[in-house]
Amino acid sequence: MTRPSLDALMSPRAVAIVGASADPARIGGRPVDYYRRAGFAGALYPVNPNRTEIQGYTAYPSVADLPGRIDCALLAVAAPKLIESLEAVAAQGAQGAVIFTAGFAEMGAEGAALQHALATRARDLGVRLLGPNCLGMFHAAIGHCPTFSSALQNGMPLPGRVGLVTQSGAYGTHLVERARQRRIGVNYWVSTGNEADIGVAEVIDYLVTDSGTDVIGVYLEGVNHPDLLFAALERARQARKPVVLMKVGTSDAGAQAAASHTASLAAADDVFDAALREFGVVRCRTTDQLLDTIYAASHAPLPRGRKMGILTISGGAGVILADSAAHHGLSTPEMPPEAQARMLARNPLGAFANPLDVTANAVNDFTLVSDGLESMVRDGGYDMLASFFTSWPASKVLGPQLRAALKAAQPIYAHCPHALVITADDATCAAHEGDGLLVFADPDRAVAAMAALADLAEAFDRAPRAAPPPLPDGVPDIPATGLSEFAAKQLLSAAGVPVLPERLVQSADEAVTAAENIGLPVVMKLVSGDIPHKTEIGGVLLGLETPDAVRAGHAHLLQAAERHAPDARLDGVLVSPMAGTGQELIMGVRVDPVVGPVAMVGLGGIFAEVMQDVVLHRAPVTNDEARAMILRLRSAPLLQGARGHPVCDIAAAAAALSALSVLGAGQAAQIDSIEINPILIRPEGEGAVALDALIIPANPDAPA
Amino acid sequence: MTRPSLDALMSPRAVAIVGASADPARIGGRPVDYYRRAGFAGALYPVNPNRTEIQGYTAYPSVADLPGRIDCALLAVAAPKLIESLEAVAAQGAQGAVIFTAGFAEMGAEGAALQHALATRARDLGVRLLGPNCLGMFHAAIGHCPTFSSALQNGMPLPGRVGLVTQSGAYGTHLVERARQRRIGVNYWVSTGNEADIGVAEVIDYLVTDSGTDVIGVYLEGVNHPDLLFAALERARQARKPVVLMKVGTSDAGAQAAASHTASLAAADDVFDAALREFGVVRCRTTDQLLDTIYAASHAPLPRGRKMGILTISGGAGVILADSAAHHGLSTPEMPPEAQARMLARNPLGAFANPLDVTANAVNDFTLVSDGLESMVRDGGYDMLASFFTSWPASKVLGPQLRAALKAAQPIYAHCPHALVITADDATCAAHEGDGLLVFADPDRAVAAMAALADLAEAFDRAPRAAPPPLPDGVPDIPATGLSEFAAKQLLSAAGVPVLPERLVQSADEAVTAAENIGLPVVMKLVSGDIPHKTEIGGVLLGLETPDAVRAGHAHLLQAAERHAPDARLDGVLVSPMAGTGQELIMGVRVDPVVGPVAMVGLGGIFAEVMQDVVLHRAPVTNDEARAMILRLRSAPLLQGARGHPVCDIAAAAAALSALSVLGAGQAAQIDSIEINPILIRPEGEGAVALDALIIPANPDAPA
Repeated sequence: MTRPSLDALMSPRAVAIVGASADPARIGGRPVDYYRRAGFAGALYPVNPNRTEIQGYTAYPSVADLPGRIDCALLAVAAPKLIESLEAVAAQGAQGAVIFTAGFAEMGAEGAALQHALATRARDLGVRLLGPNCLGMFHAAIGHCPTFSSALQNGMPLPGRVGLVTQSGAYGTHLVERARQRRIGVNYWVSTGNEADIGVAEVIDYLVTDSGTDVIGVYLEGVNHPDLLFAALERARQARKPVVLMKVGTSDAGAQAAASHTASLAAADDVFDAALREFGVVRCRTTDQLLDTIYAASHAPLPRGRKMGILTISGGAGVILADSAAHHGLSTPEMPPEAQARMLARNPLGAFANPLDVTANAVNDFTLVSDGLESMVRDGGYDMLASFFTSWPASKVLGPQLRAALKAAQPIYAHCPHALVITADDATCAAHEGDGLLVFADPDRAVAAMAALADLAEAFDRAPRAAPPPLPDGVPDIPATGLSEFAAKQLLSAAGVPVLPERLVQSADEAVTAAENIGLPVVMKLVSGDIPHKTEIGGVLLGLETPDAVRAGHAHLLQAAERHAPDARLDGVLVSPMAGTGQELIMGVRVDPVVGPVAMVGLGGIFAEVMQDVVLHRAPVTNDEARAMILRLRSAPLLQGARGHPVCDIAAAAAALSALSVLGAGQAAQIDSIEINPILIRPEGEGAVALDALIIPANPDAPA
Repeated sequence: MTRPSLDALMSPRAVAIVGASADPARIGGRPVDYYRRAGFAGALYPVNPNRTEIQGYTAYPSVADLPGRIDCALLAVAAPKLIESLEAVAAQGAQGAVIFTAGFAEMGAEGAALQHALATRARDLGVRLLGPNCLGMFHAAIGHCPTFSSALQNGMPLPGRVGLVTQSGAYGTHLVERARQRRIGVNYWVSTGNEADIGVAEVIDYLVTDSGTDVIGVYLEGVNHPDLLFAALERARQARKPVVLMKVGTSDAGAQAAASHTASLAAADDVFDAALREFGVVRCRTTDQLLDTIYAASHAPLPRGRKMGILTISGGAGVILADSAAHHGLSTPEMPPEAQARMLARNPLGAFANPLDVTANAVNDFTLVSDGLESMVRDGGYDMLASFFTSWPASKVLGPQLRAALKAAQPIYAHCPHALVITADDATCAAHEGDGLLVFADPDRAVAAMAALADLAEAFDRAPRAAPPPLPDGVPDIPATGLSEFAAKQLLSAAGVPVLPERLVQSADEAVTAAENIGLPVVMKLVSGDIPHKTEIGGVLLGLETPDAVRAGHAHLLQAAERHAPDARLDGVLVSPMAGTGQELIMGVRVDPVVGPVAMVGLGGIFAEVMQDVVLHRAPVTNDEARAMILRLRSAPLLQGARGHPVCDIAAAAAALSALSVLGAGQAAQIDSIEINPILIRPEGEGAVALDALIIPANPDAPA
């Protein structure tokens, strides 16, 4: 059964407020006040059995008495009356309802049952539900305001093309207020509350297709339907609509289940972060970052690249902007020498490499500014501009001249974001914004916001993900009882991860025979599903060069097991060839409770953990994605020939990581995690080889 | 000869403006306008040969005609007339002069000579000089405004106890404007320009002793006199006056001289950063951070620790604040269970662990807020508080009730910084500030600012640095020609850095004899001052177990040298015992052109460089400081027994680092850098041993 779209909720022509109050300070009265002040163009029907008029509107004793059909209803009634009200408004045609009422799933099992009953009834009636336990929403352009948020107490939002969706009503209120102070026009705000029906993902989807929305801001506390969310985010990316997101809190669930290195390395928040990166979502840690990015994305075009040109009236401010560019991953190449010479001839006290310091001389000749900006775009080829004029725009004398100079050059740089760094009153700032400029007081925030625009542009230009390769035929299922290292490596080998030719032996004699067949020197290891970190108990012996050494080694390993893990079930001893030289990496795949299977790569040994140098990506990944993951490691230079180290076979490493990710994703239901630690990446052309493997099967008793 | 203090410049009773103009838009007129508007209480004497009155003040045709003695003069005259004017005002008693005029050292050698002549004459006349090429200064409390900065065009600074000193006049203007918008009262602003006489350090020193200054803000572009600066910063620390500093740009000079690992690791900016940390200076990367920290330090007491209590009306905002606390190194321990239970009994919908979510129920009972805050201090023992009320303070109904509740609890939390996270108009924010609260709109900025206060408190509570040990007697000077590895290690050994017993041999026979004396197995290495990174050419052989292996190894090394470095001067081959096991670190000391000798420690091998995990400190360092440096490495867990690794002898590592730093500092004139890479830190109690050493002597031809 297809459910109705959100149109009736988001853009209704007729709205009923059930439980409307004549007192604008009350929950049932505040929305009426907002509709009145916003000048809602549709029909508004307050419903109240005791009044014939409410805040200037004709009131009706019951929903059944309404004079016309409605699209949407606000149910400002107590919990026990909700279902009855829902039925009444559905009977009048409502396909959307907003419920502020609290006391549902947030209050435990009984509330959850009540919420389920409400959602089920709404579904049966064909009514889409916002809430319960939410602060409502608004669609400012049509004056539709079913909310009691105090965000509208100080006035309606500025006109604009930003849509906000927030799980928290209170923090949504804070953002709406801040957006107005920041001169950001918010057209939609939707607080989703308990998400009994409509969740964040569906609202994002609505805004992606909405012609009145250019930029989507999201505030998340938890992810209820990751698949829907990721699908919506990918649709936003393909529609080239920036999504700017703040997610608070970090899940402890993943960290608690940290049985393997992989699990403890891939903290749940990092996993989510990696997923967002796929869709080009700008994830912000702070409220200012969120608002700055929304502001920039809604006021400026996206840049074509990452080259920033800087124009300044003060050397110091130019250096600040250049420092910030480097910090935020933008480049500041120099102007062509001819262009520099031309400007220097006009202004010998200036500097025109980049930053272009036109000096306070610009006071006497504002064409230094307009010509400078023009040359930066035409000759410098910069993708974005930042210019510093401190308080000049606020000056009665200088302000208008500066503005005229900026406007004169504007057609030339119209395709570039251009941030002014100034201090001025709101009206002056707004005037410059009207001219197509971004306005910031803090130079670093200006640069950070433009860097976010560059990130968005790059994400939007990426092709959709290629399909990863399928799991090869014949890979056996992972048993719930776990696998020894030997069996784990056999499985990995079947899945396409290269391993060494190895023999599992049960006696010293067998070990000697195996070693002679493989060729000395050999490596010997204990094999037991019960001894996950065998190096730490002396369960690994390297470089055994003679049959006698192999024989003695076998005895040593059995003693180590007896001493450190007397209860472990031993599968035997593994005899392997020496692996050769190269750089060790750790690779893993684990099943995140929210995001699903996730691939991980890091520097090998204990460094990955201590240095927190790991890169994550949702599994499965293609070879190209795996390669990009490896190259994003801070330690990637170790694989690329840093300081005389050999260049390693990164293609082989990427192929192994992709194969591992395909295995993990294909058997996600069977595993908690698979970890290869280490995998040796040999010199270029010589391949990679997994030296150890640990498969932790899914725990069917673990909470989902 | 003692020079006059800055009193006459900073707090004069009588001021002459030479070159005063009747036009408030001109450089010589704007200061007169500012003095008038600021209501300067002293005598102001405009000097202008063509007028008897200027902007309401009696004007004088020449300095010689002034009716009384002056303390300070503003010389708004062209460069050629400056010395004559200086002599004239000195004759009238001036001990301070401000010079805006540009065209001096910033314009090359000729300008520098002019500047030197000016500074010399001022020194001879006993006049302290601010500038040239500066925007002047102000001392707001007395209305002293010898500046033409546009920062005062929109009004005088707010009353307050902040002093700002900026090398850039334009960025200083920006900061002064931003400070007013941020409701920060700036009493002094001094722009130092070319610093022909007065530099940033001396102004800081003045503000440290000034009774009207509580907080000092500094904007630096370069450091002209690091010793004076560091001394002033240490005096500020001991006076418990916060110094909040922004320094832009990074010197390329250090990086260009990156001949050794040490030099390339210790970029000059990191060195400066490490030095600032000694004095508890809060270094800010961005303008908002600078202003936020100044704001917090000038409005709130310093906390006694790092425990933050959070009170909120919204779960989400509480999580944001808790996330930020973790990000900025603050802790958020839970309330005692009894206190939680007590509050839960009153407010069953709330949560009272920490964050304390009093929920929107507080609307009905604001004692939930006041009692909550009181319990957080009394029962929770928090050192600082953050509370979130979004737009409530702006509400006509809720605002006054909330403010009353906050004030009611204020005596209890008066000793704690308490940041309100709200959105409200300026007047409302100012009212809360008047009640002793900090006000922020972005929760992360609130937490960051309070974390900076905690850093300040910790720095102020530190005892002054203990004297590092002296260089042991008998350490030879480092020759300008450089030293071989063998000789370098002998020198390090004399300085107190442990090394292995080693023999330098010249033949295979000598090598075998040495190996048998030392005890097999041994390590053998090429020794040549011309082969700095010998591992990369195969110049190091490990684990030679038999006399034959030693003999073959000797031949191998000579071949390697012949093949890879045929022109290298060989000192011989070093025969050493096996070093044993442990964790390798890199230690170094280098002479930074600005900061002087600097000690460095990092993870050994190529990891330090790739992972950028190094810690710096001005040399020499004590054992305790060296130990703290080592423990600040991100990789420190590798020394502390992470994942079954042995606990290493950190005391021995610290002693070696201290000894190295003492050597480097003691012979700073002789060296560019000394590097020990690696030094092996053995298991606890077994010491440390330098395995390789490289001393790069000072290059007398290098630019200073």
